Amino acid sequence: MNSYSNHSLADILGDRRRRLAEIFAAPVILWSGRRSPRNFAANTFPFRASSHFLYFAGLSLENAAICLEAGQLTLFIDDPSPSYTLWHGETLSKEDIAQNIGADAVFPMAELPAHLAGVATIPVQDAATWTEQTQLLDRWVLPERPLEGIDLELAKAIISLRLVHDASALAELRKAAAVTVAAHKAGMATTMNAKTEADIRAAMESVMIAENMSCAYASIVTTHGEVLHNDRYYNTLKPGDLILADVGAETATGWASDVTRTWAVTGKFSSTQRDIYDIVLAAHDACIAKVYPGVEYRDLHFLAATTIAEGLVNLGILHGNAEDLVEKDVHALFFPHGVGHLLGLDVHDMEDLGDLAGYEPGRTRSDRFGLGYLRLDRPLRPGMLVTIEPGFYQVPAILNNSEVRTAYRDAVNWERLAQFADVRGIRIEDDVLVMDTGSEVLTGDLPTKAEDIEQ
Amino acid sequence: MNSYSNHSLADILGDRRRRLAEIFAAPVILWSGRRSPRNFAANTFPFRASSHFLYFAGLSLENAAICLEAGQLTLFIDDPSPSYTLWHGETLSKEDIAQNIGADAVFPMAELPAHLAGVATIPVQDAATWTEQTQLLDRWVLPERPLEGIDLELAKAIISLRLVHDASALAELRKAAAVTVAAHKAGMATTMNAKTEADIRAAMESVMIAENMSCAYASIVTTHGEVLHNDRYYNTLKPGDLILADVGAETATGWASDVTRTWAVTGKFSSTQRDIYDIVLAAHDACIAKVYPGVEYRDLHFLAATTIAEGLVNLGILHGNAEDLVEKDVHALFFPHGVGHLLGLDVHDMEDLGDLAGYEPGRTRSDRFGLGYLRLDRPLRPGMLVTIEPGFYQVPAILNNSEVRTAYRDAVNWERLAQFADVRGIRIEDDVLVMDTGSEVLTGDLPTKAEDIEQ
Repeated sequence: MNSYSNHSLADILGDRRRRLAEIFAAPVILWSGRRSPRNFAANTFPFRASSHFLYFAGLSLENAAICLEAGQLTLFIDDPSPSYTLWHGETLSKEDIAQNIGADAVFPMAELPAHLAGVATIPVQDAATWTEQTQLLDRWVLPERPLEGIDLELAKAIISLRLVHDASALAELRKAAAVTVAAHKAGMATTMNAKTEADIRAAMESVMIAENMSCAYASIVTTHGEVLHNDRYYNTLKPGDLILADVGAETATGWASDVTRTWAVTGKFSSTQRDIYDIVLAAHDACIAKVYPGVEYRDLHFLAATTIAEGLVNLGILHGNAEDLVEKDVHALFFPHGVGHLLGLDVHDMEDLGDLAGYEPGRTRSDRFGLGYLRLDRPLRPGMLVTIEPGFYQVPAILNNSEVRTAYRDAVNWERLAQFADVRGIRIEDDVLVMDTGSEVLTGDLPTKAEDIEQ
Repeated sequence: MNSYSNHSLADILGDRRRRLAEIFAAPVILWSGRRSPRNFAANTFPFRASSHFLYFAGLSLENAAICLEAGQLTLFIDDPSPSYTLWHGETLSKEDIAQNIGADAVFPMAELPAHLAGVATIPVQDAATWTEQTQLLDRWVLPERPLEGIDLELAKAIISLRLVHDASALAELRKAAAVTVAAHKAGMATTMNAKTEADIRAAMESVMIAENMSCAYASIVTTHGEVLHNDRYYNTLKPGDLILADVGAETATGWASDVTRTWAVTGKFSSTQRDIYDIVLAAHDACIAKVYPGVEYRDLHFLAATTIAEGLVNLGILHGNAEDLVEKDVHALFFPHGVGHLLGLDVHDMEDLGDLAGYEPGRTRSDRFGLGYLRLDRPLRPGMLVTIEPGFYQVPAILNNSEVRTAYRDAVNWERLAQFADVRGIRIEDDVLVMDTGSEVLTGDLPTKAEDIEQ
């Protein structure tokens, strides 16, 4: 129930290991990590294994490590103590776990120090584990520290594998997408009877809990969509409000979904909300239509920006030519983030490695206001999964800034904009798989057209 | 919405500070802590401030510290950066926060090092913060390290305050209890339509999410109640199964509830289930009836043990006299944990301090099988909140152990016990406030009698 269901886990993992061995020769040790304490040691946050470990070990094993070398898999894990069994029940022996994942050998964790000669690794997020990594390897292994030497080479090799999802990963990603779609449908369905943002969040997350999935990230369920990473749910719902819900499920083996929809509390958009909604949707649809192998993801970002700018020109909110406006970053007044990112075991896949995964070698982040938040700048390849998530927001910190108003006084019709005050934030986000000839929207069962989400 | 509602927060906190100053003279710095990363730095677990900080600062402020000295409160916190405001919205300035909590002064965090002379502190759980505590104070400040010197004296002083809840704390604890009661009612109500443990968990936790509360601990919702800390929810529900649900809400300011009920998947207990249920309920009711100031909590544990032993004698499962059986720890074959614990800002209140809070000075844990898991060994005082949670479990790791079977061959009628195979685990748990003359069950709106929870 909590592992891959479509194929033999051992076969899946063997294939991943062999592909790694083809491009990386040194032995690799990947740690799974440990639970992080919440308010006292025995009351922890839910355990979440390192994504790199999950990719090659398949199961969310606590305080374990794997060695990958020349296609061979060695598992390091301790059998549970008798008192652990009393409180947590019978669990598989380390030999049974090793068999399930196709490990060639299994040792208790105490044997790990004898297997560390010349190994490469990736830092784990929890401090107890990266401290252990640092001590055992006798070099700094810190999540925030740029990787060097063989660790950097390992990261690049893993990225080349994880950038392109295999069939087994896709099966898990489809499960996450399906549950996420169901969660959004539940959120929309409950809105008429909901009193607060929290009521809608509860309806959405309960779908995920019932499927034994977790939140891939902190849910955003807000009438203030202009707060891009809003994680408060206290507002009451009022007629005229929009609900922006950015909620995604993660399977028990760690694979994520990431979906946003925006709908009206009353079930019907106002005419101004509908006007802006259709612009964001046009950007969303235009980008997805252009998802092909070889396309530069950055060009999709500019396509979204241009589509939004053009729509705002047509509404009389912006003055000028769309391409020129995007050149001057005017779109970023209303669309300050990137059009999306990689998706996989992490909602921003492999962001623990900084921009190594998101940015093609040799490319770095722009310092342009309209481009600096772009998390992905690579040509698309079949098997990549990306989000497409254009948006329109009226962020007070941007639009009420007098310098901004002065700088863009010729580009923006502020009086016209004021007529759209009931549009605080709209985003439409789907998970799009790059195919050999085009794309597949994994979350395509969730409506996007205004008339289909209106009630 | 996310702070104390009944009184002025500043007044509440001022009172707590003054009471601390009466018993502890040195200056105190308490850190709130930071978010723990989940799979990458920007994708964190929900923030949960240190309970000691919450007690004296009232609000769940990230990466903040407070200084308490002679009844004065100084707040250390940084104003949000402009990019934080873009992504997370407008937040209160540090001056506004200081006013809300009644701080006498406020400084940015960079000023903290200038205020550390001679201060006492308590370790925070997250490694980034306890590392900072250790560096700034130039002494080891580690959660797992026994406290020494003024830190130990501070812990004892804080314990003396937090052991006895003030009216403001009780108002929050009542809110947590009310939502927890509602969650359990929702869980019972959904059982007839539920297919899996996860479905019931979803119904229960969604009540808490809708009230902007979190789980005070990992929910237990299981048909295998004999697994004491079961945190898996994959089992399908079958006729004859019992559901054991140990689920508690925590308010936004950190106050917890902790409640267990056990009910039948079909709505009706079997006769064997009902027999055992009534024994556990008898123990529960007997203990609560004895909650008075001055009563030794350990005696309640033995009362529960004796009540259970007596019930099992009456059913023919045990042979002998109840007191004698308890003396020999026979009850612990079926009731291996303690009858409960302190409850407050932590579900096991102040367990971050080891047994300092739970055990009266001079007392230590017993190594007796039937007593070693008792988390509280103090005389009860008005204002203490404790759980009362007797249970009966058939734990294979205990009952199938051949040494145990040999040791207890005369005490247990194993053939008779086999007739109760459909009782894997039953626990009944309520949150009980010690009053001047008796007790109040904060979770008393949730039925306990079998006929009241049967459907």
